Amino acid sequence: MPSWPPAIAEERLALARVGRLATVTATGRPHVVPVCFALAGRRIVTAVDAKPKQTTELARLENVRATGRASLLVDHYEEDWEHLWWVRVDGVAEVIRSQTAIDALAAKYAQYRTAPPAGPVIAIEPERWRSWIPSAL
Amino acid sequence: MPSWPPAIAEERLALARVGRLATVTATGRPHVVPVCFALAGRRIVTAVDAKPKQTTELARLENVRATGRASLLVDHYEEDWEHLWWVRVDGVAEVIRSQTAIDALAAKYAQYRTAPPAGPVIAIEPERWRSWIPSAL
Repeated sequence: MPSWPPAIAEERLALARVGRLATVTATGRPHVVPVCFALAGRRIVTAVDAKPKQTTELARLENVRATGRASLLVDHYEEDWEHLWWVRVDGVAEVIRSQTAIDALAAKYAQYRTAPPAGPVIAIEPERWRSWIPSAL
Repeated sequence: MPSWPPAIAEERLALARVGRLATVTATGRPHVVPVCFALAGRRIVTAVDAKPKQTTELARLENVRATGRASLLVDHYEEDWEHLWWVRVDGVAEVIRSQTAIDALAAKYAQYRTAPPAGPVIAIEPERWRSWIPSAL
């Protein structure tokens, strides 16, 4: 399967402004939400922020606590399907409080510099990077 | 939680050119890939197409066969976070062969009219529509 070289996959992921966080509920059902995220060292971090939520005790947090796993997908779509690509990280995840993570998010998003996310952080320790491009480079 | 009225959520989803399909592996791990999709009646359908894959026996098909469930997420990102939104459908899913589904995909994507997807179809029967907008309309 054609894919990016690892360094390019990591760069594409790091630069993407939005990713989709997939988790699994305690009862084994899929769950997916768009998230802002950043790389913090080897880890991928995303935080519960001030964007309105039903509660700060979100399904994503419950799922990570219940299963200890998460995947983050970044993709590019355009009508010329020769230019599609995606990058996905699958890994072990945990819910933490981390100023390092908040700092990484604020460094990436100006929006977080004015309103730093107050909620807990989901940190993903990558176990597997996967990427896809339509044809070999 | 602020959300779209159901008719608008359905329209936003229907018009989106790419969605993210979340499934769960037989061992309970999250999986997520970008997909082209269409509404076919009440169902959401996506097909294994000619875009290069490791195999036509994809993880997404195995997952749907193993768990009978899938979620499809559509979202909009821009730097003004007041204009973010997402729509997600969670439902029962199955792997089928369906000309109706292929026709719905070809009606939506010109790319599929020149090269109709040959592979099996994942059909999602929505059980729950969820949407999110930053503030009430």
